[in-house]
Amino acid sequence: MSNIDNDYFFAIARAQSDYARCIDDDRLEDWPAFFEEACLYRITSAASHRDGYEASVVFANSRGMLTDRISALREANIYERQAYRHLLGMPALLGQTSAGLRTETPFMVARIMQDGTTDLYATGRYLDIWNLKGEAPKIVERIVVCDSSRFDTLLAIPL
Amino acid sequence: MSNIDNDYFFAIARAQSDYARCIDDDRLEDWPAFFEEACLYRITSAASHRDGYEASVVFANSRGMLTDRISALREANIYERQAYRHLLGMPALLGQTSAGLRTETPFMVARIMQDGTTDLYATGRYLDIWNLKGEAPKIVERIVVCDSSRFDTLLAIPL
Amino acid sequence: MSNIDNDYFFAIARAQSDYARCIDDDRLEDWPAFFEEACLYRITSAASHRDGYEASVVFANSRGMLTDRISALREANIYERQAYRHLLGMPALLGQTSAGLRTETPFMVARIMQDGTTDLYATGRYLDIWNLKGEAPKIVERIVVCDSSRFDTLLAIPL
Repeated sequence: MSNIDNDYFFAIARAQSDYARCIDDDRLEDWPAFFEEACLYRITSAASHRDGYEASVVFANSRGMLTDRISALREANIYERQAYRHLLGMPALLGQTSAGLRTETPFMVARIMQDGTTDLYATGRYLDIWNLKGEAPKIVERIVVCDSSRFDTLLAIPL
Repeated sequence: MSNIDNDYFFAIARAQSDYARCIDDDRLEDWPAFFEEACLYRITSAASHRDGYEASVVFANSRGMLTDRISALREANIYERQAYRHLLGMPALLGQTSAGLRTETPFMVARIMQDGTTDLYATGRYLDIWNLKGEAPKIVERIVVCDSSRFDTLLAIPL
Repeated sequence: MSNIDNDYFFAIARAQSDYARCIDDDRLEDWPAFFEEACLYRITSAASHRDGYEASVVFANSRGMLTDRISALREANIYERQAYRHLLGMPALLGQTSAGLRTETPFMVARIMQDGTTDLYATGRYLDIWNLKGEAPKIVERIVVCDSSRFDTLLAIPL
């Protein structure tokens, strides 16, 4: 593994860690800034992804759509306050494409209910393409592949 | 991210990993040695922390208090033996203060009961200040912010 | 921590990450290639390991036995398809032996059932010896020490 790879690893690992903290700290308004203006954000299931379906539970192809999503979430979420905790594995560097650096990063997300109950809310992996040309890496494309196909509650927060 | 940052990252990541192994290996008597002689160790909830309350479920401001805590735990814990498994995310380096390097590290802790039942026991983040002047980083301050406010069992082991 | 340690850390972290993805992607036929031809692979419990018992739930001492294991698994597993998600902590470098580099790496594995139910399936640590002489690190010895002693379902997939 070359020093360049190590530098990329650090840059991506730090960006992923910041991304997770942004959501877990409930600073959702800052979340779209992790993405390029023109971007792709999809949440799908492992089964759909494996079968090559393009259907997504959540789909956005611009930073503006992500901002709108957060606004809607803030308006809707006037009932119960839940908390989330992301834990991410090490990013795997999968190679350079013309769009940017492709990586895969596994995750587990715990959900903490108002009454303190904690459960494993979602597991899966981020399939990402990163633009590394700016100061901090920006997400060009993030496909969130959830291991489970049960998505009823998955519509709530960004993953 | 500079090379100095990378070195800090490694030093903190290694210290965190050693800290978690110390607890999970049940070598609790070694646990206070991760702290400075004059230190702050608190366990609190995200809700208390967000509201600025200083109230803590666990509080210690010296290494001696941590040692006392382990002694008390060993005497009390003559009934059921439980095991724990910490999994930590990457430390985020938040900046230098006069007291040391501030970092934040997310965690999940699983608890394994005698009968083999495994559950997600606690999630949260370590808000730390590290003294990096010695051979290994030492904890000047560790505020363990648990995502859940349900603390009945949280009094048992160090987090 | 020296630069050589950092290089080892990266090499092991990458190998562990690749290992976990191989299993979670259900590319089980590729799994034996992470091991040396002459290797030791054991799954045991923390209680057995602590008491010094050599008894293992799973035992293999060659790559061929690992390959056989996957073949048997593929033939047997015609009923319900489950998915797994490994999340690994940072590897701790424990020192060089004549057999290779010793490391310890904690893990959590979630299991996702066909109906979407997700639970914490196994937690524990990998006690490994790595041969670092080739292009990618190869496993000379992997003792999977599970925190739980309940092994009925643990026979299913490689850990």
